Amino acid sequence: MRIVVLAGGIGGARFLRGLKQAAPDDAVITVIGNTGDDIHLFGLKVCPDLDTVMYTLGGGINEEQGWGRTDETFHVKEELAAYGVGPEWFGLGDRDFATHIVRTQMLAAGYPLSAVTEALCERWKPGVKLIPMSDDRIETHVAVDVDGERKAVHFQEYWVKLRASVDAQAVVPVGAEQAKPAPGVLEAIAEADVILFPPSNPVVSVGTILAVPGIREAIAEAGVPVVGLSPIIGDAPVRGMADKVLAAVGVESNAAAVAEHYGSGLLDGWLVDTVDAGVVERVEAAGIRCRAVPLLMTDPEEGTAAAEMAREALKLAEEVRVA
Amino acid sequence: MRIVVLAGGIGGARFLRGLKQAAPDDAVITVIGNTGDDIHLFGLKVCPDLDTVMYTLGGGINEEQGWGRTDETFHVKEELAAYGVGPEWFGLGDRDFATHIVRTQMLAAGYPLSAVTEALCERWKPGVKLIPMSDDRIETHVAVDVDGERKAVHFQEYWVKLRASVDAQAVVPVGAEQAKPAPGVLEAIAEADVILFPPSNPVVSVGTILAVPGIREAIAEAGVPVVGLSPIIGDAPVRGMADKVLAAVGVESNAAAVAEHYGSGLLDGWLVDTVDAGVVERVEAAGIRCRAVPLLMTDPEEGTAAAEMAREALKLAEEVRVA
Repeated sequence: MRIVVLAGGIGGARFLRGLKQAAPDDAVITVIGNTGDDIHLFGLKVCPDLDTVMYTLGGGINEEQGWGRTDETFHVKEELAAYGVGPEWFGLGDRDFATHIVRTQMLAAGYPLSAVTEALCERWKPGVKLIPMSDDRIETHVAVDVDGERKAVHFQEYWVKLRASVDAQAVVPVGAEQAKPAPGVLEAIAEADVILFPPSNPVVSVGTILAVPGIREAIAEAGVPVVGLSPIIGDAPVRGMADKVLAAVGVESNAAAVAEHYGSGLLDGWLVDTVDAGVVERVEAAGIRCRAVPLLMTDPEEGTAAAEMAREALKLAEEVRVA
Repeated sequence: MRIVVLAGGIGGARFLRGLKQAAPDDAVITVIGNTGDDIHLFGLKVCPDLDTVMYTLGGGINEEQGWGRTDETFHVKEELAAYGVGPEWFGLGDRDFATHIVRTQMLAAGYPLSAVTEALCERWKPGVKLIPMSDDRIETHVAVDVDGERKAVHFQEYWVKLRASVDAQAVVPVGAEQAKPAPGVLEAIAEADVILFPPSNPVVSVGTILAVPGIREAIAEAGVPVVGLSPIIGDAPVRGMADKVLAAVGVESNAAAVAEHYGSGLLDGWLVDTVDAGVVERVEAAGIRCRAVPLLMTDPEEGTAAAEMAREALKLAEEVRVA
């Protein structure tokens, strides 16, 4: 069974850990990772979502915070601050720095990001094939109004520095229109038996991946079940501040609205949490098969809950397939 | 009193700490730092000698080893090794990495090394004006015979990786011929009241600085006392493997031969250690005033011995001046 997953950061990574447990032994999992969160810091190329997936599946993640490395120190960052070099709001640890140093060096040597990611994964052995959505530079910018003036900030500045404390007026994946899917992305989609959207952010994670020309179309035309899991439980995002960016694209913050946002042209099945059982009918009325199951990844480290969610997603995919 | 010092790494830095104690309160010390040891590692520009001076005078040095940062960890390096990215033989600590990251970022932004060094020193406040010998890239290469074949290796590879275990056949400051002294270097020499050569390596430290076109001539023509301190005590280098590189340039490893190597056209005064009192006559016969005084910097942290050495050097400079 060939499974393709469109993944953002923490939510996607934890779901993937569950999926690795839940999928048949001979399953081949290809992860198309969001790179819209990528940022250049201190002259280094940082890919937060790719790294979160790689570290989580490779056993190097800081479980408590969900991102960054375990057993981490922050001496490089301390020293950069002592030199007056920021930003200080972005938490890069010493071990994490090494990843960015290797990546930057390989990029400077001419390797595309997809080749670099493959090389980094040779160490981490995540058990999935991790491909960045694109080798081209795409940066998600968020338009915000500050002191009566509209300005665009990098997604990381909005998310990490401002903690989404102001409303997002618009979310723009800058560079996406000119970007091409990375080698292997369209091929994996075309050969997939199932395509999954984990409970990642529908705007700045899955949405950004879908904004790369060709990816949305390839998924819609793949002719295989496409099943998603709601990142919204009981009208609130499970993690992060998805409601802020949903509002920016005119989508209500509830499990049904997100499914409708993806649309029946793309999505065949949708899992909502049991507390949202009430929206099942609404989603199905939109032409998307819907089930209510527990969607809280309460035990990230063991991944039992995530594995159960993945099992439900694969089950729903089979229901859709035979329907 | 304006003092100009041509400095390498550990020996130069420790001498400078003593000089700061010994010099008159109104003394202005300009240090022309060797950059021939500079190396690009992991895509970062590393300047070992400049950093050793900066950390030593700024209170950040690892006193025991004489280079690198105090209170250091090595997590970045561990992780780079886990990625299979070397070299592993060069000991870059986490705190040290920050310096190289800031430097590389500023160089990439277009600042010359001299401006970058000035910016880094704003943090460290070394109490001297530290100027790299040149903003141009100069790399000391060492020719060695390995398995019957001659090859050139970077100085750091010879010194740190091979630990000078094979004979140096030649020492070449690659790029020196085309290099220009950094802004401020010739001006400082022209305005100097005294010029000092600390007990740094006469070939790969002081020698490399003198290889930058214009510097040797400016010193010879400055018309002020030029006094050096022997890095060789009792026919052996105090630190490092100076004898290896001296042999490569055809100079015996003893205190007199080094003075003769600099020559009376450049050097006016020379301090040798008391154990080498026997060579004083030979050095003076070469037209260089010579004194035997204790030259072991036995208490690097307090710097009392180094201060006494600096006092002797300044005293010899005055003797030369009135002579």
